[in-house]
Amino acid sequence: MTDVDYARYDRIRAVHWTGAGLSLIDQRLLPMQQVWVVCETASAVATAIQNLTVRGAPAIGIAAAYGVVLAAQAHQDAAGLVSIASLEPALQELAASRPTAVNLFWALARMRRVLGERCAVSVLEQEAQAIEREDLAAIRHMGQLGASLIEPGSGVLTHCNTGSLATAGFGTALGVIRAAYAEGRVARVFNTETRPWGQGTRLTAWELLEDGIPAKLIADSAAAHLMKTGQVQWVIVGADRIARNGDTANKIGTYQLAIAARHHGVKFMVVAPSSTVDLSMPTGDHIEIELREARELLEAGGQRIAAEGVQTWNPVFDVTPGSLIDAVVTEQGIFRAPFFGAA
Amino acid sequence: MTDVDYARYDRIRAVHWTGAGLSLIDQRLLPMQQVWVVCETASAVATAIQNLTVRGAPAIGIAAAYGVVLAAQAHQDAAGLVSIASLEPALQELAASRPTAVNLFWALARMRRVLGERCAVSVLEQEAQAIEREDLAAIRHMGQLGASLIEPGSGVLTHCNTGSLATAGFGTALGVIRAAYAEGRVARVFNTETRPWGQGTRLTAWELLEDGIPAKLIADSAAAHLMKTGQVQWVIVGADRIARNGDTANKIGTYQLAIAARHHGVKFMVVAPSSTVDLSMPTGDHIEIELREARELLEAGGQRIAAEGVQTWNPVFDVTPGSLIDAVVTEQGIFRAPFFGAA
Repeated sequence: MTDVDYARYDRIRAVHWTGAGLSLIDQRLLPMQQVWVVCETASAVATAIQNLTVRGAPAIGIAAAYGVVLAAQAHQDAAGLVSIASLEPALQELAASRPTAVNLFWALARMRRVLGERCAVSVLEQEAQAIEREDLAAIRHMGQLGASLIEPGSGVLTHCNTGSLATAGFGTALGVIRAAYAEGRVARVFNTETRPWGQGTRLTAWELLEDGIPAKLIADSAAAHLMKTGQVQWVIVGADRIARNGDTANKIGTYQLAIAARHHGVKFMVVAPSSTVDLSMPTGDHIEIELREARELLEAGGQRIAAEGVQTWNPVFDVTPGSLIDAVVTEQGIFRAPFFGAA
Repeated sequence: MTDVDYARYDRIRAVHWTGAGLSLIDQRLLPMQQVWVVCETASAVATAIQNLTVRGAPAIGIAAAYGVVLAAQAHQDAAGLVSIASLEPALQELAASRPTAVNLFWALARMRRVLGERCAVSVLEQEAQAIEREDLAAIRHMGQLGASLIEPGSGVLTHCNTGSLATAGFGTALGVIRAAYAEGRVARVFNTETRPWGQGTRLTAWELLEDGIPAKLIADSAAAHLMKTGQVQWVIVGADRIARNGDTANKIGTYQLAIAARHHGVKFMVVAPSSTVDLSMPTGDHIEIELREARELLEAGGQRIAAEGVQTWNPVFDVTPGSLIDAVVTEQGIFRAPFFGAA
C-alpha cells in the first residue's frame, strides 16, 4: 500500500454540519447545479433522505445522526439535557425515511444508546460527529484494503454512486477505485448509468471527472457485452445491507452484474463499512426492498416520455447472493465465503 | 392454435407507401406526439433510417426497399425503365444507413436481383410491396408458432420494441406475445425500458397499452431481480442478425438478459423472419456492432444530465451466443441448436 493523495482524491463532501443545521448538497440537481439545502429540523432531514437530496447508505446514516441532534436541540431543557421521550417521534420519523439501507438504523441505534433515558445535547452532537469521522477513517482504510486485491493493469466496472457523495467522503467502492488508481493498479474505469435515478451518469461520472480519473459511462445493459470484450477484471460495488452469509442488498442491477461477472470469470467485490453488515439477518431473503414511484421510469428530464396509463414495477434494490461475491471489504478486513458466519 | 383477432392486436403501422412517397411515423417522437414524416427521395429514407425515424430490423428492410423505388421513380426514362447504374448511388447510400441489421442488406439485395441491369419501375414497386406483404404474413405465422411454445399461465419479459412499429405489422417477439395473450397463455407481461433510446418505455409500453394487454415497465437492470421472483418463464426478443450457429445480434442488453435467464432456468426465445438469418456468417463473432452517439447517454428529455467532459461507450447491439438460446422462431419453423447448420 502506498499513501493516497487525499487532497486530490477526496475533495467532495455531501454532508456538512454547521452546529445548528445540516447542509446537504442536493444530489437531485447534481452535476448541473450545485445547490446546498440546509435542514434545521429532524423532519427536514427525514424528508431530505426520503426524497434523495442525500443518498448513499453511509451518508444516510450520518445525516440521520445529525437529524437526532437537531431534534435534541429543539427539545433541550435549560440545562441542555434532552429525554428519550421527547426524541421518540423524531427517531421514528427518521427510521421511516427509507427501508433498505441498514446504516440508517445502525446510526439511530447508536444515538439511542448514547442518549439512554436522558443526556446532554452536546454528547449527542459529539456522537454524530464521531459517526461521521469514523466512517471517513473506515472508508479510507477499506479503500486501501480493496485496492490490494486488484492486479495492476486491471479494468474495473462500478454501479450506482458509492463515492464521496454517498459517504462521509472518498467512498466505498469508488474509494477502492480511487485508491487503486492512485496506486497505478487501474488501467480502465467504466461506470453504469444506474437507471432509473442516474446515480452513475450524474454523480459517479462527475466525481471521477473531478479527480481526473479517465472513465467511460455505459448503459446498464451494456455491462455483459463489456465483460465479453475482456476489458473488465473486477466489478466493484457498495452495499445497503449485508447479511451474515454475504447476501448483499444494493442498488437494483447489482444482482444482474454479479451474474454476468460470474458468467465471464470477472471478479466481484462489495465494499462497505462494517455498519452495513446486519448480523441479525442470516440471509438476504428477508431484507425489505424499497419500491419507488413510477415517475422515475415514466419521465426523463422532467418530461413525460411514456404513454398515459403505462404501469411500472420499480424496485430500487436487489439482493446478490453471497455465492456470487468474491470478496466483501470492510474496515475490519477482507471477507470471503462464508463471510460473517454460516446462514 | 386459435385464430388471432388481428383487428384488435394489429392496428398500428409504422410504414405507409403512398405510391409517390414513403410515410413514416416518427418513432423519435412517439408516444407523446404522432407525427408522420413523408420521404420523397431515397436520401430522405436513408436519413430516416440513420436517425431512427424508422427503426426495427424488418421495418428498416421494408423502408429501404421503398427507398429504392423512390430512386427509381427519379431516374426512370420515358418508358418507365431504370438502370442499375443510375440506382447504384441510392443503393449504396441506403446500405450505409445502419450496419447491424441484416434485413436492410437482404431487402436491397432482393431489389437488385429484380432490377438486374434494367427493369420497369413498376416491377420494383411490386417487389417492395411484396417484401412488405410477405413480412406481415411471415410475422403473423411466427407469432402463432412462438405462442405454441408458451405454457398457459406464463409470465414473459421482452426487450426493445419488436412490435408493429418495428415490422410490417403485429411484430416479431411482440407478435408472439400478442398471439400468446390472445390464446390465453400469457398471465404477465413485463417490458424493459431499453436504454439508451427507450424503445421499451416509449414504443413497446404504448403498443401493449393500445392493445389492452396488461404489462409492467421495468428498468433494464431489474430483469434478473424479476426473474428471481419467479414471475417470468420466457424472455422473448427479436433479432437484427442471426448467424448459422444461432448467435444473435440484437439490441444492447439482450445478451445480459440471456445470461440472467439461463441462471434462473428461464427460457429464451428469439423471433425473427428468415430474412434475419445470415447464412454467410458461421458465428456471430464478426457481426459489426453499431456504436451510436454519446448524447444518448448524456442527455435526458433533451437536457444535459451528465457533467461536461464525461466520456461514454455506447454500443447499441450485442451478440447473444446460440448456446443461451432455447428456440429461434422464424416463419419457416422453430429452430433449436445447432440452429441453421454447424459453425
